[in-house]
Amino acid sequence: MRNIKLIIQYDGTDFHGWQRQPGLRTVQGELDRVIETVTSAVPTTMASGRTDAGVHALGQVVCFQTPNKLRVEALARAFNAMLPYDIRVLSAVDVPLDFHATVHALSKRYRYQVDNRYLIDPFHRRTSWHQSKRLDIEAMYEEGQVLIGRHDFRSFETGYPNRASSVRTILAVDVRRVGDMVQIEVEADGFLYNMVRSIAGSLVLIGQRNRARGWLGHVLRSMDRQLAGPTAPPQGLFMLYVVYPGENTPVTSTLPTGGLK
Amino acid sequence: MRNIKLIIQYDGTDFHGWQRQPGLRTVQGELDRVIETVTSAVPTTMASGRTDAGVHALGQVVCFQTPNKLRVEALARAFNAMLPYDIRVLSAVDVPLDFHATVHALSKRYRYQVDNRYLIDPFHRRTSWHQSKRLDIEAMYEEGQVLIGRHDFRSFETGYPNRASSVRTILAVDVRRVGDMVQIEVEADGFLYNMVRSIAGSLVLIGQRNRARGWLGHVLRSMDRQLAGPTAPPQGLFMLYVVYPGENTPVTSTLPTGGLK
Repeated sequence: MRNIKLIIQYDGTDFHGWQRQPGLRTVQGELDRVIETVTSAVPTTMASGRTDAGVHALGQVVCFQTPNKLRVEALARAFNAMLPYDIRVLSAVDVPLDFHATVHALSKRYRYQVDNRYLIDPFHRRTSWHQSKRLDIEAMYEEGQVLIGRHDFRSFETGYPNRASSVRTILAVDVRRVGDMVQIEVEADGFLYNMVRSIAGSLVLIGQRNRARGWLGHVLRSMDRQLAGPTAPPQGLFMLYVVYPGENTPVTSTLPTGGLK
Repeated sequence: MRNIKLIIQYDGTDFHGWQRQPGLRTVQGELDRVIETVTSAVPTTMASGRTDAGVHALGQVVCFQTPNKLRVEALARAFNAMLPYDIRVLSAVDVPLDFHATVHALSKRYRYQVDNRYLIDPFHRRTSWHQSKRLDIEAMYEEGQVLIGRHDFRSFETGYPNRASSVRTILAVDVRRVGDMVQIEVEADGFLYNMVRSIAGSLVLIGQRNRARGWLGHVLRSMDRQLAGPTAPPQGLFMLYVVYPGENTPVTSTLPTGGLK
């Protein structure tokens, strides 16, 4: 048996999310079908984390075990030859049998994109949330820094409790403008359900100058989901990369704004 | 009666081209429906030129006459409020009654995008033509310069003859790399059917080093469509802008690469 680690990209628009579901087009469903055809065995694929319908990935990590003896380069080529164009396998490597894409992740980084052009950009509809009013990105950045560190983030979780603990450690909150696009990035050792989308929804309220200074810290400490901003819609969210022990942080090089740029 | 000039953008993916056709979703069909609702009169919209199914526009120019008395800003706002998100009206201005979007165009500029990443980019599928092999853009640029000037371009026309004359004047041929994207731009006083797409298909053959130096000039002089390259697929093509008498050349500012960048 071997354990193979894939890094994959997908445009989540036309998928019902990562997780396999009978009768629905999902990323895992497409990938499993192709792996089964190429390796002649039904795989059990594990992702670093699930993504919801409409959410994209630039560097999702997926593992599966297989008795197949093809070289990893040949496997990646065969997968790409059979996969639809909205999923691509960027790399495939052999990893130790006990490597687990979910359990062993040290941190993950997400980006949330806000199209901040006055008129919605036809080429950004599928990859951003449109906000006509110019956002104050300095305020978003400054207020966002209060989230850094080890906290109970249940104020930013949909349907708490979903997990044993709602304590996570946020390593970075970045906000930048690239052309007409505002990019919010959050890196953490783990995420609660809809955590990035509710942080993005809250930061947008701040960027609209609809909240007083110190509000986000108050929301965090309140541990009350009702006080946070709305859950931003899925199409603005991208999983950027996952960091594992012994790896360098991936290069963030060229990453999508979705269209105009 | 007034004559109103609109500058519009559209993502052509989900349209059967510009021109109104019964039972099909077209840009003109959507626009006419909205103009009719807002102005209470069926318009006769004229575009600077038709675009085919799948072809995009960043600065298409459209005119229509109307007895409506609303200010142009209010008209543009009403149109955008009712149009689907894959069409946007960037501006609306009153122009003289005899202004004609097609007849009075001095020149038009198109961009053709080639996704030159080794693996097809899931976020560029709808806005580019994928070519894995790294293109020699210096060769494409240098060879492309032979097209500049007044020539009979029937070698680059699908279904010649479509018009009274196949003589046109090309003002510029540019080729550049922006990240993984190769952008070919052609500006001319007018275009034949599929002219940019067959020029792009020919330049890609040159970029792949599949043609000898001087080949493109030979194709041009041959006046034989069979000798040129293939017609590149529609999804890589963008109408950028149209120049009219008395106007400055539009600023090419931020223009789409479609996704990653």
